[in-house]
Amino acid sequence: MTVLSVQTASRCQLVSITEQVSRAVEQSGIKQGICVVYVPHTTAGVMINENADPDVRHDILSHLERMVPFECSFRHVEGNSAAHIKSVLVGHSVTLIVEKGALVLGRWQDVYFAEFDGPRRRLVYVRVVGSPG
Amino acid sequence: MTVLSVQTASRCQLVSITEQVSRAVEQSGIKQGICVVYVPHTTAGVMINENADPDVRHDILSHLERMVPFECSFRHVEGNSAAHIKSVLVGHSVTLIVEKGALVLGRWQDVYFAEFDGPRRRLVYVRVVGSPG
Amino acid sequence: MTVLSVQTASRCQLVSITEQVSRAVEQSGIKQGICVVYVPHTTAGVMINENADPDVRHDILSHLERMVPFECSFRHVEGNSAAHIKSVLVGHSVTLIVEKGALVLGRWQDVYFAEFDGPRRRLVYVRVVGSPG
Repeated sequence: MTVLSVQTASRCQLVSITEQVSRAVEQSGIKQGICVVYVPHTTAGVMINENADPDVRHDILSHLERMVPFECSFRHVEGNSAAHIKSVLVGHSVTLIVEKGALVLGRWQDVYFAEFDGPRRRLVYVRVVGSPG
Repeated sequence: MTVLSVQTASRCQLVSITEQVSRAVEQSGIKQGICVVYVPHTTAGVMINENADPDVRHDILSHLERMVPFECSFRHVEGNSAAHIKSVLVGHSVTLIVEKGALVLGRWQDVYFAEFDGPRRRLVYVRVVGSPG
Repeated sequence: MTVLSVQTASRCQLVSITEQVSRAVEQSGIKQGICVVYVPHTTAGVMINENADPDVRHDILSHLERMVPFECSFRHVEGNSAAHIKSVLVGHSVTLIVEKGALVLGRWQDVYFAEFDGPRRRLVYVRVVGSPG
């Protein structure tokens, strides 16, 4: 298992981790298999989306905020229920395909760590399974 | 494959299944790998979230209800379209990492069966793949 | 890895790909394992849901549209931010269990390619890992 560290800079932020995940795949020695990217937090998640226009990231975060406003009335006394709910909607893991020793992503895809209650230092776990042949 | 059985007690409920999933991982004999938790229903799902304050579970369920009200006008005659939609948003599987024969979860994380059209008796499938070494 | 091709017919559409995924599992020769279905696009996703009443598919798509209206005001100049956001909510992969050489699905479940910015020709990648024994 490879452990990545991500420092986020604001309450909500999408940080590309494609390069670090790709490196973990290469170092695993697995040629044909799958790669699981797992976020061990409850107010952050991981998603796939567009790597080109940064406005897409902006629109994703602002619409999630419209759907789950941080200032909504919630019971949880820490006041960050919106972050928990967003992480449930986005999910805590993505499963990717590994082919010829490399991550298979669509042309416009990046893997993003999704911060919903930052800024914080966060962890991401990467596991590759398959055959080295 | 291990089959778990979950009895839910209300229409919407989050039931922790972390212990049963952990046991399935231990019994599999796999030391390094991944664990897939799969829900074979269409009005229930599975999610990762906080294991400490039960208010977080309450806030997640009540906000999902705000986003997808059960009484919304839908076409499906069984009247439970909201449950189908919530299960799509939450998802039907989670993929977890197995290290040294044990499930790797964040300190505050539990695995929850998410009931959206109960009370019912439900099934959860668990599959562990990897190496026993 | 098996590559499937899906032609969609409208902007938003759920297309069952269960048969093609099942065939890929059978051809892989894997008897006990898991199957990852991956969508390499950023305005489409993949989900599990009901295979019986087509009104469920209608209700899922129309409620997603209510939650993320295509005509919402967004920054991204291509004008399809709603499709990006829906794909994030639904997800880009599903992980299924393979038992005795066949896909394990619930009685009412199908695997659906979820188009949110069609009509287009799309790709789906399928990877099966596990043991042939």
